[in-house]
Parts: sequence; structure tokens; C-alpha cells
Amino acid sequence: MSKPLNEQVAVLGVGCTKFGDNVDQNLADMMVDAAQAACQDAGVTLDELQAAWLGTFSPGFNGGKATITLADSLRFRERPITRVENYCATGTDAFRNAAAAISAGLYDMVLVLGAEKLKDRAVRGLQREGIHPLIEAGSTAPGMFAMAANRYMHTYGLDRRTLAKVAVKNHANGALSDKAHLKMKITEEQALSAPMIAYPFGLFDCCPTTDGAAAAILCRADIAKERGKALVLLRGSGLAVSSGKPYLDPTCEYLGFPSTRMAAEQAYKAAGVTDPAKEVDFAEVHDCFTWTEITNYEDLGFCAKGEGSKFIEEGRSSLQGDLPVNPSGGLKSFGHPVGATGVRMIYELTTQLRGQAGQRQVKNAELGLAHNLGGPGAVACVILLGREA
Amino acid sequence: MSKPLNEQVAVLGVGCTKFGDNVDQNLADMMVDAAQAACQDAGVTLDELQAAWLGTFSPGFNGGKATITLADSLRFRERPITRVENYCATGTDAFRNAAAAISAGLYDMVLVLGAEKLKDRAVRGLQREGIHPLIEAGSTAPGMFAMAANRYMHTYGLDRRTLAKVAVKNHANGALSDKAHLKMKITEEQALSAPMIAYPFGLFDCCPTTDGAAAAILCRADIAKERGKALVLLRGSGLAVSSGKPYLDPTCEYLGFPSTRMAAEQAYKAAGVTDPAKEVDFAEVHDCFTWTEITNYEDLGFCAKGEGSKFIEEGRSSLQGDLPVNPSGGLKSFGHPVGATGVRMIYELTTQLRGQAGQRQVKNAELGLAHNLGGPGAVACVILLGREA
Repeated sequence: MSKPLNEQVAVLGVGCTKFGDNVDQNLADMMVDAAQAACQDAGVTLDELQAAWLGTFSPGFNGGKATITLADSLRFRERPITRVENYCATGTDAFRNAAAAISAGLYDMVLVLGAEKLKDRAVRGLQREGIHPLIEAGSTAPGMFAMAANRYMHTYGLDRRTLAKVAVKNHANGALSDKAHLKMKITEEQALSAPMIAYPFGLFDCCPTTDGAAAAILCRADIAKERGKALVLLRGSGLAVSSGKPYLDPTCEYLGFPSTRMAAEQAYKAAGVTDPAKEVDFAEVHDCFTWTEITNYEDLGFCAKGEGSKFIEEGRSSLQGDLPVNPSGGLKSFGHPVGATGVRMIYELTTQLRGQAGQRQVKNAELGLAHNLGGPGAVACVILLGREA
Repeated sequence: MSKPLNEQVAVLGVGCTKFGDNVDQNLADMMVDAAQAACQDAGVTLDELQAAWLGTFSPGFNGGKATITLADSLRFRERPITRVENYCATGTDAFRNAAAAISAGLYDMVLVLGAEKLKDRAVRGLQREGIHPLIEAGSTAPGMFAMAANRYMHTYGLDRRTLAKVAVKNHANGALSDKAHLKMKITEEQALSAPMIAYPFGLFDCCPTTDGAAAAILCRADIAKERGKALVLLRGSGLAVSSGKPYLDPTCEYLGFPSTRMAAEQAYKAAGVTDPAKEVDFAEVHDCFTWTEITNYEDLGFCAKGEGSKFIEEGRSSLQGDLPVNPSGGLKSFGHPVGATGVRMIYELTTQLRGQAGQRQVKNAELGLAHNLGGPGAVACVILLGREA
């Protein structure tokens, strides 16, 4: 990184609510908790923050639209607040826009907040919001991803036992995370014998529906340094939208997600990463389904196409592996409140890079990657955070 | 402006669909038309654009969520697309985020697109999306703004005849705009005798429900200069969220919108504007209701608080006045497709600054202001564009 510190972006503080079925909290309550935790972590007050970006997918029935809800719940007023929505990549895209505003010199210090209240919602209604009424009518997220997984299994011979290994790993990690939604270990047999949702996905191959919020405070890196904070720096970011109609595209090989490959390419280029398998120390990736994590390994360049099964089988992505993936427990165990997930990944990356992840700490965490995947795999966002060497 | 051109943002091209009841176009069709028009105007192809920001308030029932709809309709793929939503300030906030990314050096040239398909929607359902279910339940935009207008009338003695003058002016301007939704002149008597909607607002005091899309292509100013284009530069921007609960705030004087004052202050500071009444040459402001335009004059610093009536009565905001406001016809006559409106204002500012506005051209157009107001007046965004002197 050749840029001077005053042209770089640092993560000064992070916060996260408990993820789960938060019956005692509405969207606004969770926003307050996450933002206050991030302020406390950063050692700043809300008054010091000059602007905010709010990532939320579907706040409609929980307090009107969202920027005013943030302004009123946090009394964060008289300042800019932008809402970003980009399917399941909402949280990381909000982070990306906030970071650009810091880089542009518009603000010195800002808030990024991801929040979603899902457990009060009818899942079908929610699902419908993210689904194209002509192309995808009647389909569900498990159904769509299951079709892709079947194609992959047909081509590469992946079986359900390998998928179960992803679930077992992520639940084991999540069991070490106090804030995880499904904080419990499971066995391969439990995963394999769980009720079928959409072949090859049983219940434990699917991430849960979750409430939660997460926050990050970003600032110019020279300001973070002045404050004596451990320097967690933005190394690169990427966002790509491919097509929402892969089903209609006869050239689509359907063995992964081009959006992830393109977003990763942008982020790696910005960070000067040429060999991600060696240079990325750990990653939080979008494991909405167990198979998604396997194809993510490949699309992110952690291994070659078709070798994702081997990657998990050999334990390379486990907490003790050479490239731990989803040390938090991932969407699978930590939970998936849509707009919050990307910011929750920033929370995990920052915690790991500072060496504060306790029992789930990965070794030699110097460069971490966060990856969100949204829509029918059409939108991907990749963020790279690094600790000052 | 002391910054070198390569650190400034230019508007390279703009496009706009016909605004109105576009029964032959869905959201995607309008996106394509606006973006292609902007490309043609800029002399670039879509392939040259490295990223996009899409401002849309409520695309939910018109092709799923929005970024994928843009990617597929325009075949604008393999690149970043961010959706921004911020009530009626959605379009200008999308512009603001796109400009920040150019300033940050992330991209050389990007697309900003505002689009909304409203005429297929049940207005009550749409309204509900923007309204707080606890605080504002049962209220409508005309009802909320009417309450504020009554308070203002009580304090300053404004009467309905003055409101009618705003409608007459904006319809006269809109009658000169080929793309305007309500392209027709009206008389004061017509305005005063129209059916009452919510006192003091009759039908002609309210902006219509409109379909439409508008686009702008932004680039580094040195690139615009290289291409030999008339230089239209971003001089400053501001965004502020006040409170969504002014009705509950006993200290609120309710004679204008603090959000507008704060956003304007930010934009003026960035542009070095100290006397907006003299330095701003013309403005596109958020005249969702006639009274809103009057209070906007005051909140934007075009005249003192309470003197907005005099400002319109004296003809200062007319096309021939010293500070023409809404030369396009404004929301009142040009129409108000929520997410498109802010970008449509950028279209108008750019057209005027280039001297290409034909019959509605304002004189000496060197610095133009765009102003969006959203929610219950809680969100405001102000953009200043200037022509290279």
C-alpha cells in the first residue's frame, strides 16, 4: 500500500448485537445497540461521527423507511444518512460507499450500520421482495441454490457428506461465538439425517432467518493512528452485478458465481493481492447454503474450480487450517439478518485482525476477506481488511 | 474552487425520459431510455462506464429489487451497481454517492440513474412504505404538508392566492418542457377553484404521481475537459436528516424544514457560497406542494424566513426573475417519479448551465442548485453544479 495514511481508510471500532430471534428488540433498538457498541469500542461519541450509511434490505414494515428510523432512534440528526440496499450484499456495499466518502475527503469519521428485523416477517413475503416476479416466480432461495448445487454435484461428484462437513465446521465455530444465533455444535450424522428442504440441502445446509444489527466506525487512517488504536485498514473492495437471469442464459456453466469472481478480482487488484490462497489469512464468506461456501472457495481463488470439496475435506478452511473460513460460524451458525450480515463480517474481521477473537482466534491474522453474495447469486461484494504490518 | 481538475467531478452527459403516465414502459424500459440518452449526450458507450448508482424508492413490485433489473435491462454487467434509497431525496443522494466515488479515485466515469414506476401502483400502498406505522399512521403526504402550511399561514399571513402563484409559475415553465408530465398552463382562478385535497392545498397545489427516469454520467473533470465538453462541475453537496417525528417535538417551530437548511449549509460551505441569494443563479427545488416551494426559498437562503411570499409575489423566482426557481416546471408540472426526481433536477441544471434549455433558458446560468426533500420533511439533499467560468 503506497498511499499515505491520511488517504487511507481505517476501521476504528465495531459493534454487534446478539443475533437470533430478538423478540424484545425492534429494528431501531438493534440499531442503537450496535452503534453504541461500536462507539464504545472506538472510544468516540456519536457526536463525533459526521455521516452514516445504513445497510438494510427490507425495513418497510418495521418503522417506515430507514434513514429517519436511524436518525430518531440514535438521535443521530442534522447529518447525512444514506440507505444502501443491494440484496444480501447490502451490508458490505454500505461499507464500500462509506469508505469511498472517507477516501474522497468528504468526512473524517463516519458510521456504517447494518440492520434487519426478519423474525416478525412472513418469510414468503420477504422472499418475494428479492425475487423477480416473472423470471423466478414460485422459486425460493433454497430451491434456486439447490438447482445450482445439483449441477455442481453432477459435474464434480460432490456428495452430501461433504456439504455436511461445512455445516459441522461452521457450527463448531459458531459455538465459540457468544453472539451467534445457532450457538451449538452438530455432527455430520445430524446434518445428514435432518429434514430435507430442497435436495441436496437438508435443514442444516441452510442458514437461519435471523434478527440482528452490526456497526463499524470508519475514519481516516491517520486519525486512527493518532488515537493509538490498532490499525485495521481497508486494503481493497469490489462489487459486481452479473445477471439476474442465469436460468435463461444458455452459456452459464452454473458451477459458481461470476459476480464473486469479478468482485474478488477488483478487490485483489486494489490490494495488490496476486495469490489469494497464500496472501489471504482468513475469510468470512457468504455461506447461505453449505454448497455456496464450497463454490466460494473456488470463486475467491482459494483453490481451483472443482477443488472446493478437497479444500473442506482436508480441513484447510477449519479454524486450525491454513485459510480459516467463517471463524465466526458464518451465516450458517451466526445467522443471517440480511442487511446486517456484511457489517457483521467487518466486525469479525476487525476482531480477528486485532487478535481479540478469543477461542475462535485464527493464527497470523494479517489480511482478512469479507464476501457477500446477493440475489440469485448475481450481486457480490468483497472487502479486504488488513492489520498494519 | 482551488482543487485541480483531476480531483473534481464533472457531469459529462444527461438524459431523461418523458415524464407522465408511461403505460407503454416498465421500470426497466425507462432505465434503458434514460441511460442511453445520457450516453448519447456524453458521447460515450455504456461499456466506458465503470460503475453505477441507482436511485429508486420502491421498485419492489416492478421487477424485483433494483440493481439486477438495471444490470439486465441495460446489459450493464460485471460492474458495481449500488442502489440508494432515501425517501424523496433518493435521486440526489444517489448522485452524491456516485460523485464521492469519483472524488475518491475509485472510478473515472460512472452512471447515476434515477427511476420510478408509480402509475401501476396503489397510491395508498406506496404511501404506506414511506410513512411511520406508529407516528404517522393514517396520514398522507398532502395531509402532513398541509398541517405545516397551516401553521405557516397562521404565523406569516400567507394566503391561498400566493400558493396559486407558485402553481401558475411552475405550470407556465412546464408548458415549455417537452418532457413534462402536466405540460399545460393554468390560471390563478383555475388553481383556486380546483377541488380541495387538504386545506390549504387544492388539486393544483399538489404535484402529480408520475412515471419516469433520468440519468447522468459523471467523470473526473479533467476527462470531461479532454473530451472537449462544456464543463459542468460539482461545486458542493449536502445531505441532512433531521427528525421523522416533528409532530412529537414541542420545540419544532414548524415554519420550514431544518433538514433543508442543514443540507444547504453543507453545500454552500463546500462551494464557498456565502450569499446564496446573489450567488445562486437558478434552482430546481422540491415543490411537492406549492407551499413547500415558498418555504424552500427561505430555507435555502434565497430570502429571509417569512419572506417567501414576497419572493414569489415580486416575481423573483419566475423565469425572468433574478433567481428563477423550477424553470423545468418542478415536481408540480414536470412530475415526481420519486427516485427519478433528483436526477431529473441534475438533467435540468446541466441543460441550463450549457445554455441548451431553449424557451425555458434562464439568463446567466453559471451556478445552479438542486434540492430534494424527503419523508415528513426530515431528509434533504442539496447539490450545486457550476459551469466553468
